[in-house]
Amino acid sequence: MSEAGKKFEEVTVSTQSIFQGKMISLQVDTVQLPGGGTATREIVKHPGAVAVLALLDDKLIVVEQYRKPLEKSQVEIPAGKLDPGEEPLTAARRELEEETGYTTESIRHVCSFYTSPGFADEILHLYVAEQLVKGEARPDEDEFLECEAITLDEALRYIREQRISDAKTILAVYAWQLYRLTGQIGHE
Amino acid sequence: MSEAGKKFEEVTVSTQSIFQGKMISLQVDTVQLPGGGTATREIVKHPGAVAVLALLDDKLIVVEQYRKPLEKSQVEIPAGKLDPGEEPLTAARRELEEETGYTTESIRHVCSFYTSPGFADEILHLYVAEQLVKGEARPDEDEFLECEAITLDEALRYIREQRISDAKTILAVYAWQLYRLTGQIGHE
Repeated sequence: MSEAGKKFEEVTVSTQSIFQGKMISLQVDTVQLPGGGTATREIVKHPGAVAVLALLDDKLIVVEQYRKPLEKSQVEIPAGKLDPGEEPLTAARRELEEETGYTTESIRHVCSFYTSPGFADEILHLYVAEQLVKGEARPDEDEFLECEAITLDEALRYIREQRISDAKTILAVYAWQLYRLTGQIGHE
Repeated sequence: MSEAGKKFEEVTVSTQSIFQGKMISLQVDTVQLPGGGTATREIVKHPGAVAVLALLDDKLIVVEQYRKPLEKSQVEIPAGKLDPGEEPLTAARRELEEETGYTTESIRHVCSFYTSPGFADEILHLYVAEQLVKGEARPDEDEFLECEAITLDEALRYIREQRISDAKTILAVYAWQLYRLTGQIGHE
C-alpha cells in the first residue's frame, strides 16, 4: 500500500460553499477521479472534538444528554468540540470539568480518529483520565446533562440496550475493557 | 437516568432545509430548550451505513481508498452506505463482495452506532464475517480502492501510524482484539 497517503488522489476541480454555521460548514467539491472523469463530493467541515474516558476507581463517568439529530437522549462519555485555536488536551480537561466537575493531573492521549470520513473532516481526540478530583460541573448555557458513574458491566448493558450507541463511547468502552484485560490503553 | 430516552428533550420550533445532496442533506432546526429559551441545531441527515469486520483465518480484510474530506488515503474495513430500502445485513454482504470480492454464509451483527451524534443522524451497522470465500471485487465506478489482509499486530501498527484513523475501523479492531482474548464479540 501507498506510504504517501495520496493513493487514488481526487484532485479538486472546483469548490462550492453551501453553508457556514455555528458548528459545521458544508461544501460540494467537484473532483477529478484517478481513472478519468469527475464526481462530486459533499463535505462537512468541523473544528474537531475531544472526548474523555474518565475512570473513577472501577467506574466510568458518563453523561446523559439529548441529541437533537437522533431525537433521543443518549449516555455518552464527556465530549465537546474544540474552541478556536484550542489544544486538544486543554479542551479535554475543560470539557471534563464543565460537564462532570472532575479535574485531574493524570490525563493521557489514547487515540484520535475521524468520525465519518466519507462526508466529514471531524477528528475526535480521545483521552483517558484517572485519579479524578471532584468539583462543580458548569455546563454551557444551552447544554442540559446528567452525570453518572457506571461499572463496565453496566456500560456493556447500556450498549446492548442502545442507551449507549455512539461510536466514541463504544470505542472507549472497548478500550477500557482491553485496558482491564491487558494493562495497556491506546498505542503510544 | 431516564428510561424513556426523552430526557432534556429539545422540541422543534421550526426547520429550515439548507441542502439536499446525493449522500447527505442539511437542515437547521430551531429548538426550545428544557430550561426555556431557544437554540439552533445544525443537522446532517444520512441514509445510514454498514461496515464489515471480515476475518480470513487470523487476518483482517481492509481496503485503502482516498477520502476527500481528509485529503488523504486511509486504510479502513469495507463499508458503504445503505441503498434506499435496503436491509443492513444485505448491504453488508453487498459491500463486502463489491469492495473485496469475498462472500460468506457466516456473518453476524456486532453492534450499531451513531458516528457523530452532535451534528449527524448517521448510524453504522457493524458485522463480523468469517469463513470467507474468494470471488471478484466489483467497486462502484467512482470508487478506487485496494484490498489487503493484515494481522492484528499490523492493524495496531497502522493505528499508531494513523494509516488507520477512522472510528469504525479502530472500534472494529478493538472488537477483534477482545474477540481473540475472550471468545466473544458484540453484545447479542
